[in-house]
Amino acid sequence: MSKTLAPPRFDDVLAGYAMIKDRVVKTPLLRHARLDEAAGRPVFVKAECLQKTGSFKYRGASNTIMRVKGADYPGGVVAFSSGNHAQGIAAAAAEAGLRAVIVMPKDAPKIKTEGVRYLGADVVFYDRLKENREEIARDLAVERNALLIPSYDDPNIIAGQGSVGLEIAAQCEEAGVVLEALACGAGGGGLMAGISLAMHGLSPDTKIYTVEPEGFDDHKRSFDAGKRVANDPGADSICDAIMTSMPGAMPFSINNRLVSAGLSVSDSEVMAAMRFAFLYLKVVIEPGGAVSLAAALQGKIPGSGPLCVVATGGNVDPALYARIIAA
Amino acid sequence: MSKTLAPPRFDDVLAGYAMIKDRVVKTPLLRHARLDEAAGRPVFVKAECLQKTGSFKYRGASNTIMRVKGADYPGGVVAFSSGNHAQGIAAAAAEAGLRAVIVMPKDAPKIKTEGVRYLGADVVFYDRLKENREEIARDLAVERNALLIPSYDDPNIIAGQGSVGLEIAAQCEEAGVVLEALACGAGGGGLMAGISLAMHGLSPDTKIYTVEPEGFDDHKRSFDAGKRVANDPGADSICDAIMTSMPGAMPFSINNRLVSAGLSVSDSEVMAAMRFAFLYLKVVIEPGGAVSLAAALQGKIPGSGPLCVVATGGNVDPALYARIIAA
Repeated sequence: MSKTLAPPRFDDVLAGYAMIKDRVVKTPLLRHARLDEAAGRPVFVKAECLQKTGSFKYRGASNTIMRVKGADYPGGVVAFSSGNHAQGIAAAAAEAGLRAVIVMPKDAPKIKTEGVRYLGADVVFYDRLKENREEIARDLAVERNALLIPSYDDPNIIAGQGSVGLEIAAQCEEAGVVLEALACGAGGGGLMAGISLAMHGLSPDTKIYTVEPEGFDDHKRSFDAGKRVANDPGADSICDAIMTSMPGAMPFSINNRLVSAGLSVSDSEVMAAMRFAFLYLKVVIEPGGAVSLAAALQGKIPGSGPLCVVATGGNVDPALYARIIAA
Repeated sequence: MSKTLAPPRFDDVLAGYAMIKDRVVKTPLLRHARLDEAAGRPVFVKAECLQKTGSFKYRGASNTIMRVKGADYPGGVVAFSSGNHAQGIAAAAAEAGLRAVIVMPKDAPKIKTEGVRYLGADVVFYDRLKENREEIARDLAVERNALLIPSYDDPNIIAGQGSVGLEIAAQCEEAGVVLEALACGAGGGGLMAGISLAMHGLSPDTKIYTVEPEGFDDHKRSFDAGKRVANDPGADSICDAIMTSMPGAMPFSINNRLVSAGLSVSDSEVMAAMRFAFLYLKVVIEPGGAVSLAAALQGKIPGSGPLCVVATGGNVDPALYARIIAA
């Protein structure tokens, strides 16, 4: 596999989907009259929580790993992640018959380390306070002759996540719906970048919005500044999956061009969206996966025409979920 | 609408689906490697919790109500139910522009009465201990010149629920899967009867099983006895949606012919299935909706070939759900 550093284009998203479409779950678009009423417009929820491994991350992982030639990387693949990327990589590597090592914080929830091990990957722990996980992963990749797969700063990862956008565009066309707007959570911004490429190719008039937790609105502030800016290191949020310190360089080069604006939501708005999904949509959404649904329910997304929001994942600790829905 | 008392046939199921297919959600078949592993066979979960109103009941309600001529029933429709049938009727009546009155126990959970009212139906309360809800509903129907719609003892209701089976058969055919077995929860047995007709028509070699809560295994005992027998009135279960006193007469006339056997599961097996669905499938299933998944996870369903189970609904009280998943 030759490493290219150029950002992916629409064609790469199409090629990625051709590679993975028999493996991914074509997740449904969910609707509810109460959601349309709250948002004041027709709303479609792309339920990526129903994706294999419980989040969209499997798509980019699969598109990347299916291109890896085992002979080039006898040690398989390495990734660092405490969450959804870890499970996506582990599942895709198992399917490809490649070894996978995931670098995870030693205080990671047991449910996540167990999930990765169940998928056949090895786990290497690091100390969140004293060690640098990127360095550990890089050293491991060299030692083992393995490929290090980043979470979002990678053309194949971005192109693979873009399959979410291709499916949304196809599902809307089939339903005779022209989307005025599409909103999606952003951590590193890889999913948003892939979706932006897909929508720009297939539905160029649809306005695209990132949604982030308050205090982690680095995309919003970066769009406003015209360059990547970081979050306050002291910020905190319930949305563990998207508490990234700043937008990824490659995703930002795409999003800064194709995204209309950045929006943000509070933790309490996120929890209300998770409760809404429990009560009416009957799907489990994790905090970081509920930000765009939260923005829709709060009427924060500009416009009044058809809107699609992406529920990006559902991997949430049972005790936390129980507290949120019973509140 | 002329009332026919003959049980529906396969053709009626096809005609029902033709009537409602643009209104119902074609719910997905969900899979998970852990489920296949636990069951020792490929398992497909028909996610009717993602149906409109959160349960399959909308299907039969819609097939019945779309046949009602408003001029014949100026008072609209009447039903008695504290749960999923109530919401199905209310939603279908609203879509048809008919009034709906639902007779509900005065101690019904507020979330359920609120749900019915949100859909535009009127609620008439009765005292569970002192009054007979069937009599109240019958009197109301006469008074208001309205049609009383039963929960399961009705050919159009059964035929409408059968659309679940048509979709399962079509989805399996598309996936190249030949089902060895299909299992579904049974209260009155209307859904099971409709599915049995559909599968008998499209996949006659598939073995069909009812699953019931322990203590409410009236289908199992009725199959064994060759006639309808009742449950012990003192029995209790967490599965409120399917705590029916005995099989419905019309559904039983179908199920007794087409179902291979009756199975049962304990409350703790049901709760484990709900937790499994939360952790891995990312869908919310109510206790009564999880019995066939529970039977699959426990390896209780005979055979080792492809199996489909129906997750019939997801309308569960948040506090109860929180206790179950966090246990």
